[in-house]
Amino acid sequence: MAANQEIPARPRAYLAGPEVFLPNAKAVAARRKAVCAAHGLDGVFPLDAGLDLAGLAPAEAGQAIYRANRDLMDGCDLLIANLTPFRGPSADAGTVFELGYMRGLGRPVFGFSAQAVPFAERTRRLAGVAPDARVDAEGLEIEDFGLPDNLMIAGALADALDGMVVADEPAERRFADPAAFETCVAAAARWLADRRSG
Amino acid sequence: MAANQEIPARPRAYLAGPEVFLPNAKAVAARRKAVCAAHGLDGVFPLDAGLDLAGLAPAEAGQAIYRANRDLMDGCDLLIANLTPFRGPSADAGTVFELGYMRGLGRPVFGFSAQAVPFAERTRRLAGVAPDARVDAEGLEIEDFGLPDNLMIAGALADALDGMVVADEPAERRFADPAAFETCVAAAARWLADRRSG
Repeated sequence: MAANQEIPARPRAYLAGPEVFLPNAKAVAARRKAVCAAHGLDGVFPLDAGLDLAGLAPAEAGQAIYRANRDLMDGCDLLIANLTPFRGPSADAGTVFELGYMRGLGRPVFGFSAQAVPFAERTRRLAGVAPDARVDAEGLEIEDFGLPDNLMIAGALADALDGMVVADEPAERRFADPAAFETCVAAAARWLADRRSG
Repeated sequence: MAANQEIPARPRAYLAGPEVFLPNAKAVAARRKAVCAAHGLDGVFPLDAGLDLAGLAPAEAGQAIYRANRDLMDGCDLLIANLTPFRGPSADAGTVFELGYMRGLGRPVFGFSAQAVPFAERTRRLAGVAPDARVDAEGLEIEDFGLPDNLMIAGALADALDGMVVADEPAERRFADPAAFETCVAAAARWLADRRSG
């Protein structure tokens, strides 16, 4: 919800994350929405727009998906993001964009990761530098504030909860079925309930 | 500027990018601001807040930097981002968050990359799969719309200009001194001028 806006009886939660890239994304979406419903939230999945991309050139299709996701976010009261590292030391870039977008709209954002290795350690491993290195091989600083990802991501999450919900789960579950998702949904629902009664 | 807001005589441009991690970030910031000034823009660099982090625990310092950057963005009329791939197939996560945040505020965003390899090709190289692979080794889709980065990033940039300003520059210049920066600043300044006169 925007600042000072009332929390609706059944808040709409935009479910951001790289789950859209899973081969069984629609089945995963259905399971996530069931978890949301059990906690009084209405889960909205990026693929819900049900776009027909037939006949569009690739770049036009990409633009249509962007606009559809933006419209879905505009209609949501909060965001819950899977911020598990994706193809690099940070979360999926599209998900991070959406986190920023919803924060820019003034809506509360929540996020989880199913991988507990701290951001700085992941960055050093990828860069192939020593465990106490402060810069990479090119001399670029390795951000190390003991946070689970870049400080802009962690900072936005700390605007509502204490920060990211982090668990250490088997790699094969991190996008398909992370337990951290329900932990995060439950925490978001409690946060909204506290604000509604407060 | 927010939607329907007047464009000021000297628009303030938030200069997002991993340049903050360079050892000579302040000197780089000064050069970037001079380029902005030559095109009628007032460049604002993340480090401009001049925070005193002494005595803060690491996570508190990270949070303070997040808040300072957010405050700086709130006071800017547009964003110009260095979206050159950073430690992975996509742009720097903090920069992508800021791109989303400013778009959520309804302000125009502009971005450039000093590396011309398309996003899908970078992703396949990182994943170690064939040049025509549609999924990675885990079966997760490789996004391929012929765009320079994730479609949320490319989509947001196409809300103003046609998309990302992309050049192919020597690797050692991509953060320290990319020529694409001035190309992007000039294009942003023209876009603002067109809207002011239109």
